[in-house]
Amino acid sequence: MSELRRDPVTGRLVVIAPERLTGTVSAAAPDRHVTARDGDMCPFCEGHEAVAGREILAWRPYGSHANTPGWELRVIPNRNPVLRVELDLISPSSALFQTFGGLGAHEVIIETPQHNATLASMPVDDVWKILWAWRERIRDLKRDLRLKSFIIVKNVGGAAGARLDHPHSQLVALPLVPQHLEEEIAEAAHYYAKSEHCVFCHVAEEEIAAERRIIAADADCVVFAPFASRVPFETWVLPRVHRAAFDASSDDELRSIARHLRETMQRLHGTLVSPPFTLLLHTASVGQEASESFHWHLEIIPRLAPVSGLEWDGGLHVNPVAPETAAEALRKVSL
Amino acid sequence: MSELRRDPVTGRLVVIAPERLTGTVSAAAPDRHVTARDGDMCPFCEGHEAVAGREILAWRPYGSHANTPGWELRVIPNRNPVLRVELDLISPSSALFQTFGGLGAHEVIIETPQHNATLASMPVDDVWKILWAWRERIRDLKRDLRLKSFIIVKNVGGAAGARLDHPHSQLVALPLVPQHLEEEIAEAAHYYAKSEHCVFCHVAEEEIAAERRIIAADADCVVFAPFASRVPFETWVLPRVHRAAFDASSDDELRSIARHLRETMQRLHGTLVSPPFTLLLHTASVGQEASESFHWHLEIIPRLAPVSGLEWDGGLHVNPVAPETAAEALRKVSL
Repeated sequence: MSELRRDPVTGRLVVIAPERLTGTVSAAAPDRHVTARDGDMCPFCEGHEAVAGREILAWRPYGSHANTPGWELRVIPNRNPVLRVELDLISPSSALFQTFGGLGAHEVIIETPQHNATLASMPVDDVWKILWAWRERIRDLKRDLRLKSFIIVKNVGGAAGARLDHPHSQLVALPLVPQHLEEEIAEAAHYYAKSEHCVFCHVAEEEIAAERRIIAADADCVVFAPFASRVPFETWVLPRVHRAAFDASSDDELRSIARHLRETMQRLHGTLVSPPFTLLLHTASVGQEASESFHWHLEIIPRLAPVSGLEWDGGLHVNPVAPETAAEALRKVSL
Repeated sequence: MSELRRDPVTGRLVVIAPERLTGTVSAAAPDRHVTARDGDMCPFCEGHEAVAGREILAWRPYGSHANTPGWELRVIPNRNPVLRVELDLISPSSALFQTFGGLGAHEVIIETPQHNATLASMPVDDVWKILWAWRERIRDLKRDLRLKSFIIVKNVGGAAGARLDHPHSQLVALPLVPQHLEEEIAEAAHYYAKSEHCVFCHVAEEEIAAERRIIAADADCVVFAPFASRVPFETWVLPRVHRAAFDASSDDELRSIARHLRETMQRLHGTLVSPPFTLLLHTASVGQEASESFHWHLEIIPRLAPVSGLEWDGGLHVNPVAPETAAEALRKVSL
């Protein structure tokens, strides 16, 4: 049974999840490669609904039945969840060594029946459905008042830790706010207290004025290489409207984000050729939805090199490609 | 020319270092593998002193000349430094987008002339010499009052980001305190303010009392699997004497740490078979040397799987091996 632990020194959250150990821990194969399963072998392909799991949410044409073929998108529980809603939130057992039980949720969004589709190749409507599914699942999970924060992550490629090629993303709901998000919220609140500005809105304005790191921008959305990019071609997608919670976005807002996300992935594919990447949604934790200081956004992290020791815990990222150079290359891609 | 940037939202430090870009950024080869250079081809082997670089510090028998064979350990400047002492510390250029020039130092400790040695196979005296070199270099660099913090990292194996097999570690000196260290220092200070205890000393006492996560312990040192281990077989080596700064350690203290470090690596090799790993020294930043709340220590992070998106920036580590299980396996290894 999994257990959420808080590090006594730093406050970092770790899920100890022994049931996720598949096979033996081995140093012989440090790099987990994506199994090139497709067609008959892929659990996420159409016709394998029973293998993948019972759907929590799906996008289906009228008259199509749950857990049968014919879907355009399905959301299922992760078969090896890091956390489960059925478990209790146990109170901290000791001041120094805090555990919290394994309460939470871990779902998989199967983004399309097309095994070889990518965010760059899908029609924009299909990209929109992914954002729609993220929003609907967060809205539904928020009815469980024990859940406090939501992480959505999409890993593509073995170097990003993906285990399956079929397009999918994951949603993890937590009974606590993980340290990275808590810090981001706190830093943004600190900036707001000093300046009465949302730091994200301010960054968007300054980036648009400076131009050099802009990849694309319009009235709805700004796509840019962040000033302190941690890795080559790190890209953020930020809505222009100030909104702390992703799940408060309207259908139209998500449609515009979908279009920008798809174009951004086309630019990345045009520059890097099928890069492994991690896509993360940063959205306000529960209770912060009306925040004037936090602002939801997407972060795209190409995973071109293994994470070095300096980056892993030294807290120092060394990036050989200036964001100005990356933005220029990405702007030049013809769509 | 490299440049240190601070992220306007989170405060994260990133070095933008275009000169470290070797070849083209490519998605075709996401995993950088260690070149199996040895003998004639390895720049760190004996006889190649001119290739490796002029030594800043060395351990040599009496009468042996600098930059010639016969050394037991050499410290050289990194050929592609992320930061350089020759550069100026430029003041922040804008409140939102802060850059700091590329001031700092980046050195390589060539730990032994033996190309195939490991921390597990070396005589304990040779492990001691590595710790001695780290201490001497930090002491020397502290005379440059612009430098505020020191990271020492040893990456072993391509999965840990190492580019060369020959045993070596790296020292990075920074004009600022990176966020991870600053937070660790702040959290420890917060704990001290509440309890008048060093949280590290307290953890050591509680771990020794609980026994379950202890790998080895004596009057000088405790080696344990931390309660909230982020990855399988994460191991910390903590001196029992309260000391914030590594560089304040005596020769005898380092000798005891060297013995424990070597034994710990033997245990890891006995359990995991040549694991790729990152070893990090956490030591107090400048001005914190007399801190009652911070406590220097070593963290060993086996790198058995790529860093997933959840871990990379989601702030959530998922560890399939409970530290109690890891500690038991490591304790059982016969030395």
